[in-house]
Amino acid sequence: MSVANSSSETGMTSPLKSFGANVLAMARQLAQWSEATDGLTCTYFSPAHRAVAAQLRAWMEAAGLEVRIDSVGNVVGRYASADASAKTLIVGSHYDTVVNAGLYDGRLGVLTGLVVAEHFVRAGSRLPFHLEVIGFAEEEGVRFSAPYLGSSAIAGCFDKTTLQRRDRGGVTLEAVLKDSGVDATAVAALARPKASLRGYLEVHIEQGPVLLEENLAVGIVTAIDGSSRFRIVIDGVAGHAGTVPMALRHDAAAAAAEIVLAVERRCGEAEDLVGTVGQLAVPNGAINVIPGRCELSLDVRSGVDAIREAAIADILAAIREIAARRGVTATVNEIAHHAAVPCADAMQAAWAQSVARAGIAPFRLPSGAGHDAAMFGGTTDIGMLFVRCGNGGISHSPLETVTVEDADIAARILLDVLVNLA
Amino acid sequence: MSVANSSSETGMTSPLKSFGANVLAMARQLAQWSEATDGLTCTYFSPAHRAVAAQLRAWMEAAGLEVRIDSVGNVVGRYASADASAKTLIVGSHYDTVVNAGLYDGRLGVLTGLVVAEHFVRAGSRLPFHLEVIGFAEEEGVRFSAPYLGSSAIAGCFDKTTLQRRDRGGVTLEAVLKDSGVDATAVAALARPKASLRGYLEVHIEQGPVLLEENLAVGIVTAIDGSSRFRIVIDGVAGHAGTVPMALRHDAAAAAAEIVLAVERRCGEAEDLVGTVGQLAVPNGAINVIPGRCELSLDVRSGVDAIREAAIADILAAIREIAARRGVTATVNEIAHHAAVPCADAMQAAWAQSVARAGIAPFRLPSGAGHDAAMFGGTTDIGMLFVRCGNGGISHSPLETVTVEDADIAARILLDVLVNLA
Repeated sequence: MSVANSSSETGMTSPLKSFGANVLAMARQLAQWSEATDGLTCTYFSPAHRAVAAQLRAWMEAAGLEVRIDSVGNVVGRYASADASAKTLIVGSHYDTVVNAGLYDGRLGVLTGLVVAEHFVRAGSRLPFHLEVIGFAEEEGVRFSAPYLGSSAIAGCFDKTTLQRRDRGGVTLEAVLKDSGVDATAVAALARPKASLRGYLEVHIEQGPVLLEENLAVGIVTAIDGSSRFRIVIDGVAGHAGTVPMALRHDAAAAAAEIVLAVERRCGEAEDLVGTVGQLAVPNGAINVIPGRCELSLDVRSGVDAIREAAIADILAAIREIAARRGVTATVNEIAHHAAVPCADAMQAAWAQSVARAGIAPFRLPSGAGHDAAMFGGTTDIGMLFVRCGNGGISHSPLETVTVEDADIAARILLDVLVNLA
Repeated sequence: MSVANSSSETGMTSPLKSFGANVLAMARQLAQWSEATDGLTCTYFSPAHRAVAAQLRAWMEAAGLEVRIDSVGNVVGRYASADASAKTLIVGSHYDTVVNAGLYDGRLGVLTGLVVAEHFVRAGSRLPFHLEVIGFAEEEGVRFSAPYLGSSAIAGCFDKTTLQRRDRGGVTLEAVLKDSGVDATAVAALARPKASLRGYLEVHIEQGPVLLEENLAVGIVTAIDGSSRFRIVIDGVAGHAGTVPMALRHDAAAAAAEIVLAVERRCGEAEDLVGTVGQLAVPNGAINVIPGRCELSLDVRSGVDAIREAAIADILAAIREIAARRGVTATVNEIAHHAAVPCADAMQAAWAQSVARAGIAPFRLPSGAGHDAAMFGGTTDIGMLFVRCGNGGISHSPLETVTVEDADIAARILLDVLVNLA
């Protein structure tokens, strides 16, 4: 499907369709560009990724926005305020995907911003702030194992060391940008001055089951969780499964099992806290050999740093106790650490007002996943609205679903928030 | 080193050396034939294996035994009784090894039998039974994933389906035997009539830490453990490590962790019982994904079948309870099952008498590992003597050690038992 063609089929010119129907129809169209023949994969600066950017630009232009694709690939559609000196309110999310992705992760937010901006343009309602709808080029971190390339550039927190990261083919990000005629200083120039920003709003699918369980179309995000990640290696003593009595064993897997359950128990004791051992393995394990080594990962998240830090302290103490009692060695390495990014009270209140006006009980929840909004946390007031995720809350999967009705409610709430912020 | 050469260097012709020094010197010499350039690997019918058989034959001949290498590769050295109609007492163990093996697993028993038989020959002491020292060709099951090829043939419990097993190169055992001019019926012909046997004795390193902990050179084996092996697959629900609250998870690894600890707890409650989860893995686990699947193995052993069976019943009930409570599926498959093989009371008593006469407290323990003796359990009275294993009880490893003193004590005890059985 050509860009020109698809533009005419999107419903962008069909005011009879609901916001939700338009958003979902556009998401389906964008899914036609993929690096994979089966399923959706759209990673940074792949041909599929460039085609999606071109399509977003075309739709934004058709919606009456001033559009540019910036040096890192962000698609920026602007509906300027009548007051040239006004601040800018960004509505954004990302258009890249994970491998074998769903249709809505990231794109739902970009397209919701787009239909709402189009509404203002069509209605001729000028706002007291410049409204920018941004499709960030990169959030998932697939190609360079570094997420938030697009949003960090605009938020002014781009990490220059990322330029030296290499993709699977050994090509650095710097080389990829140079191929597009972009040098590193151009990335720095994308950073918006704090004073120029009115705020940052993002609509995103929840990617979890909470709203589904609560039977609510949308929820207001309180914070983007801080997270800490660890790699843990347990060294015990290997031995013959038949010849070493239970009392004389130093079984690395049994120690790891206790740690898994300690993580589960401790993280189940507090609100707004999750802990996961996602990787667990006895390397070269044999059915008749007592495990001499066991390797595991640990990921702990909370919207409140103090809650996360207290849990980690308790878990590390538990690991020390387990290792000492069992006569095994536990080597614990923290490999990543991010503070929580709270959503601004004012933005949470604005969402809550509009959610209530839509006849829905305002429900607040933290975001366990990272989002582009987190990049703006130190720069401007951020606010996020989660949209119910179907299929038990599955995301990062072709099974990801959002209903037309929920997408429509989210767009109407975003519209209402923008009107009220104005 | 040529066979002729090594024979003259073994100490077989050096009566000044102790039994123990001779046995350990011969074990070191046998280790020179290996499939690996670093470390000892000697699997069935490899060139190294044939060279070891030839060396054993040469030593046995030098010791004055009538020797033959039978159709499956067993090296049989016979010191006939004056009474041609006497029964036969076998002293055996195996001469094949695991991959990257120690020097003594199996071979200690063959060589101990050899030095003791040589003693009788040199002394001209005829026994009221034919004494056969047998080096079994295959016990470890490395090449065809089927253990006890040598001893099962002589004990009359060779499993014919084993002939169709293939090694890594795709060659069947039947083809390997045919290459040596042996057909399947020849294997069946190796079986000894029950009535012809006086008993079966085996000296073996313990391959565990019990005698080391007890500070004893030797121990009397009560039974060769029965064992049951299972593969267990837990299917839960994968999910995003950040977005699924703890209470809504169905974490396959957490369920597996509970199972690991249930096995450890239950098997720690009884004497003569061990249980091991040697394999444990979240397939394709990711640090930020709740495990949707976890795979584990289970190996339970006891010298008393009722103890093992009661433990397995409790463990399976625990698995069902854990799976039901956590909303995960546990698929449990039993993949192997062997009854315990008790050592004959008379043989245990004979060992105990001689152990006590050697000034050592007779200590009894089950064998958690399988041994050639188990093949003879249904055929004749069996008895086993364990020799202390150094280095914390490590076996199946180059770190395996036995002291000269312990090897010497074991040989003197075997000699004493044979004199008393006579």
